[in-house]
Amino acid sequence: MCSNINMKTKNFEQIFYPTSIAVVGATNTPGTVPNDIFTNIMRSGYPGSIYPVSPGHATISGAKAYKYVVDIPYPVDLAVIVFPSSVCALALEQCGQKRIKAAIVISAGFKEIGPKGKELEDQLKAIADKYDISIIGPNCLGVINADSAIQLNASFARKMPEEGAIGFLSQSGALCTAVLDYALNKHIGFSKFVSFGNKVDINEVDLLQYLLSDKKTKTILLYLEEIGLGKNLIQLLKGNPNKKPILALKAGRTSDGIAAAQSHTGSLSGSDEVCDAAFKQLGIIRAKNIEEMFNHAIALTYQPVPKSNRIAIVTNAGGPGVMATDASIENGLELAKFSPDTNKILKKSLPRMANTKNPVDLIGDARADRYDAALTSISRDDNVDGALCILTPQSMTDIEAIAHLICRVEKEMTKPLLCSFMGGSDVLNGIEILQKRHIPHYALPESACQSFAATVRHKRWLSRPQSKVRNFKVNRSRAKEIIEKYLGRGQSYLSEPDALEILDSYGFPILNYKIAKTAKQAASFSEEIGFPVALKISSSSVLHKSDIGGVRINLKNKKEVTQGFKQIIDNVQAQKRDAQILGVIVEEMALPGKEVIMGIKRDPSFGPVVMFGSGGVYVELIRDIAFRVAPITELDVQEMMKETRSYVLLSGIRGDRPADIVLVEECLERLSQLAMDFPQINELDINPLVIYAKGKGANIIDAKIMLKI
Amino acid sequence: MCSNINMKTKNFEQIFYPTSIAVVGATNTPGTVPNDIFTNIMRSGYPGSIYPVSPGHATISGAKAYKYVVDIPYPVDLAVIVFPSSVCALALEQCGQKRIKAAIVISAGFKEIGPKGKELEDQLKAIADKYDISIIGPNCLGVINADSAIQLNASFARKMPEEGAIGFLSQSGALCTAVLDYALNKHIGFSKFVSFGNKVDINEVDLLQYLLSDKKTKTILLYLEEIGLGKNLIQLLKGNPNKKPILALKAGRTSDGIAAAQSHTGSLSGSDEVCDAAFKQLGIIRAKNIEEMFNHAIALTYQPVPKSNRIAIVTNAGGPGVMATDASIENGLELAKFSPDTNKILKKSLPRMANTKNPVDLIGDARADRYDAALTSISRDDNVDGALCILTPQSMTDIEAIAHLICRVEKEMTKPLLCSFMGGSDVLNGIEILQKRHIPHYALPESACQSFAATVRHKRWLSRPQSKVRNFKVNRSRAKEIIEKYLGRGQSYLSEPDALEILDSYGFPILNYKIAKTAKQAASFSEEIGFPVALKISSSSVLHKSDIGGVRINLKNKKEVTQGFKQIIDNVQAQKRDAQILGVIVEEMALPGKEVIMGIKRDPSFGPVVMFGSGGVYVELIRDIAFRVAPITELDVQEMMKETRSYVLLSGIRGDRPADIVLVEECLERLSQLAMDFPQINELDINPLVIYAKGKGANIIDAKIMLKI
Repeated sequence: MCSNINMKTKNFEQIFYPTSIAVVGATNTPGTVPNDIFTNIMRSGYPGSIYPVSPGHATISGAKAYKYVVDIPYPVDLAVIVFPSSVCALALEQCGQKRIKAAIVISAGFKEIGPKGKELEDQLKAIADKYDISIIGPNCLGVINADSAIQLNASFARKMPEEGAIGFLSQSGALCTAVLDYALNKHIGFSKFVSFGNKVDINEVDLLQYLLSDKKTKTILLYLEEIGLGKNLIQLLKGNPNKKPILALKAGRTSDGIAAAQSHTGSLSGSDEVCDAAFKQLGIIRAKNIEEMFNHAIALTYQPVPKSNRIAIVTNAGGPGVMATDASIENGLELAKFSPDTNKILKKSLPRMANTKNPVDLIGDARADRYDAALTSISRDDNVDGALCILTPQSMTDIEAIAHLICRVEKEMTKPLLCSFMGGSDVLNGIEILQKRHIPHYALPESACQSFAATVRHKRWLSRPQSKVRNFKVNRSRAKEIIEKYLGRGQSYLSEPDALEILDSYGFPILNYKIAKTAKQAASFSEEIGFPVALKISSSSVLHKSDIGGVRINLKNKKEVTQGFKQIIDNVQAQKRDAQILGVIVEEMALPGKEVIMGIKRDPSFGPVVMFGSGGVYVELIRDIAFRVAPITELDVQEMMKETRSYVLLSGIRGDRPADIVLVEECLERLSQLAMDFPQINELDINPLVIYAKGKGANIIDAKIMLKI
Repeated sequence: MCSNINMKTKNFEQIFYPTSIAVVGATNTPGTVPNDIFTNIMRSGYPGSIYPVSPGHATISGAKAYKYVVDIPYPVDLAVIVFPSSVCALALEQCGQKRIKAAIVISAGFKEIGPKGKELEDQLKAIADKYDISIIGPNCLGVINADSAIQLNASFARKMPEEGAIGFLSQSGALCTAVLDYALNKHIGFSKFVSFGNKVDINEVDLLQYLLSDKKTKTILLYLEEIGLGKNLIQLLKGNPNKKPILALKAGRTSDGIAAAQSHTGSLSGSDEVCDAAFKQLGIIRAKNIEEMFNHAIALTYQPVPKSNRIAIVTNAGGPGVMATDASIENGLELAKFSPDTNKILKKSLPRMANTKNPVDLIGDARADRYDAALTSISRDDNVDGALCILTPQSMTDIEAIAHLICRVEKEMTKPLLCSFMGGSDVLNGIEILQKRHIPHYALPESACQSFAATVRHKRWLSRPQSKVRNFKVNRSRAKEIIEKYLGRGQSYLSEPDALEILDSYGFPILNYKIAKTAKQAASFSEEIGFPVALKISSSSVLHKSDIGGVRINLKNKKEVTQGFKQIIDNVQAQKRDAQILGVIVEEMALPGKEVIMGIKRDPSFGPVVMFGSGGVYVELIRDIAFRVAPITELDVQEMMKETRSYVLLSGIRGDRPADIVLVEECLERLSQLAMDFPQINELDINPLVIYAKGKGANIIDAKIMLKI
């Protein structure tokens, strides 16, 4: 289970803060990667020593070159390897001999090109293990440390980014070039910027761990094309409560997207909805695209966390104010209601025609003084948790003066201030003034509202209560016996009685039932159990009993039971001639109640997952379902339930009494315990669980368990 | 009803193509609106005569000024009035005397400042009517005609936009400045650009009608803060099948947003979901924000309409290809499956490591030749309906050469080609090459996919089948009698028996029922009707019968009916002491079936609206509801039903037989007829309508009608 966990030392200090670097494979041909790498390090302002290594050249860009790494007469912290893939192992071996503890392998031509490349990659791995070398890559763009203390661009990216507090980790090198260009244009600074490529050694979770403890990094951005290390991610972020915002963009949400990602990265990924759930559990904010990721990142990194969700909107144009209002509400924000003091100041400072209510409309001829009056009073109002300042370039608008004014006000604010200067070239200078000061700017007011909402979600995550995983007293050995019986036989699908017995042993509410082999026996059992009863086919070959007429409900007397038994057998035999029929279950009829579904599935990356949602026959149609990775805490359970419409139904609406929610919560926690106890359970479905009024309990109507064999 | 329809002549020729213009109120003070307007017209390249009118100046910017309009010795087509609002009426009166047939009133200080301004605006209206003058404004930015034949900037916008095929109509002047700036930056050209302000005379529907017939306009964009003229819009677009794409951005989606819009525009708006439905019926594409509006507009205007939804993606970076795939699927597109020919060409032209399947990954070192091979073969593949070309700025990427190549390929393409060059300053030149050639460019591949999907929706709208409004034989006079009885009494809420009678007279399936005044009578009625029966309180003071215990169902004998009657009376009296009880309805018990809700409501702007959705007690929780403006065609009915999850349930899933959908459709059409026949019906709810299997009919279980009094 722990095969993915990297137990080797991670020499991050040598990767990010090397005192000396060898560029192994440097050349003199401009426009090639080996040359770009060397000149990038030279030009970036790196204060340490740089040694080019090149078997064919005496000097590289004027610097003395060494034939082999081992020829360098000085100590070397980091090797950046840019040789063709076929000779990388050789070069790395020499790095080991030279006691270099870290390497960035830029070269492509490894795992991503097939079995032959995989072999070369395995050689790197073996050498790294032998000499305890930490490796980034291969097949990556490289590493940038924008910390002004070192200014290291060990990548073939065209430009060095500005220094800032955002750490960026990317599985894709190609995307990095676009991201760096995008960020430079908007003065979005980075602390560290890493393209980790094929991750033969250091992986995204290792890097995440490093950035969590890196003082220069306030926010971490993660671009992934597959989540291969779900369990490591959970282990890292559960053990180390995440105070820094982590934003993730994961490509491959749809099945076509996942297929495209697989053909691109060659790696399998788990289900996207499980990834979504895990991110929520871990407080990772998921972005829909690159723009949204940076939109959120600048707000989270460069502005204070808001106390709550009450936004104030200030604008010189009514329309965008209305649009921002819509976007605020749609993203779960509230329009702040100003204090009497603020109202008084706004009324006094703004012209009669201005709207002093939120959204504050300063009117088209507003200049910096009106923005000043509005923003200053709002920033001091305790009823306001943050502000959005909108500008359109009208003929009277002194755009740059307003931008400078915003910078001044922002300096003294203790709540977030986001801006949207709408337009094109007219507003460019104003926007640059803001961006240079790291005041978050958004082309659309709507995007600003979305990002404000992201900061509110992060705040809620930070202040959510502690919650523990509960451990129930269960009959584990009884469940184990049943499961081992099936595994011994190589059978994956449990009969319903056995499934119910496992659930019974884990404390779930099950109905009274017996298995009849004959119609006569069914009739006699039904009398014992008490009318009305339900009949259900018991056969491991039948997965959807109702679909083939394998269920009869509400049978009120022996005659109906006898008839029902025969109908079921006839139906099943007619539709599944080869079905192995174990008998017919005669079960106590459950009273009608509210129906939910709950279950377990296994995610290839995150492991056991608990599922909850609206139950019944139409579960696939309605798809009102939430997931959480096990083990789940009480808080996880509450959050996952509230994601579904089912929760409102259970809470009792329109005169309905609330249902026994406490019991449902406990059932989900018991499911989580069962999932953790038995990794052999591949899939478990309880559908429906019928729930009665508060304190009146619940009943499992139907359950399925599939084992992994 | 027709008070909103503007029957006056509309002198659009004089507004958009005047041969001579008087600028009434021009001044010499730079930086003021009156001066800006004059110099804008002068500088824009307008080839006609311009006469400044200024009581206080002999010349304006060097041109001879006239004291009054009537002093101009030449004929004048258009007056642009920039006087303070207090003297505008006087100026307009003189325009009338001078026989000027069109005026743009830029000045603010009218309706938007309150009753005094409203009075001034009414004066304008009266003069316009007297002299048959068409007016744009007041309180607007003005009018721009970018047609190269005239090049008229009769606005105080800082810059003249480029010529293009997009017509833009805006309720907000302030937003226009941002839009013009935004569009100029991206080389998005306009045909006509109008800020229509307070619309004292010419309104948005008039302008829409003009642009629909304007040869220079291919696509129409509409920014609105309220829909006041829903009925006119329907009349225009139903009578004149809309071949041009119309995109609308309507601010005020949420209740807070609507409140903000009202305080801003001073006008009431209908419900946003009705607006949404009407837009769908009329083929108007609704945009979420300014960016989305222009994103869609450039695809719809400057590219051919795609045959269908099969997109091909070409990229030099895997990650963005995956993201574009996700976005394609999420927006209802399909990834095209290439023909054998295309596959062959791609395999031959691309390196071995490239992915020749869709999304095509040309690999990071791709130069223009690879893009050429991929785009050319794809453009000839009949399995492809359109292409998205993605670029990231990698070290080998010849960005500008690729942009030029795209321009060349696009010229010969008969299907849409959209592009996304990702990054910042590195890709700027490439993007500009594309934009100058009107090849749609998107900062995000995801946005390109959304816009491609918008063109597919438009194509589907264009090719949707003809459909008519059916007229059923109904007993209209019986319904009229009942409605008039209530209106005569000033009563708005119909008793259930009366509501059912109206529905009966319109051919709806209702259950057998009688009204009992006593328990004994109820028992005897129930025997006549046949057991089991349902009992329901009949009282115009009780709106939600179940909520107060006013319903008993499934009563199987006289004893249960007698008891039920008493319980209902007790419950109602206990909870609503002053309820006026008309009796208890004894009704045939409907068999269980699938439950839907349908009804009528009135929208202040669009008029009668038909509603359909999932029925039952939880209708407000689930909110699975669709609307259409009446009268509705068979196609409208099918489309509205398919918007709900209810439709899938009715179609029969997981072994269920399909329900009597044909009857449901007919019921909705009958509702539409009822809504059109009786504008007095303010609200009608049938909840639930229980539907049985195909051919087996349906039953109304409960119905409410409220009249407008």
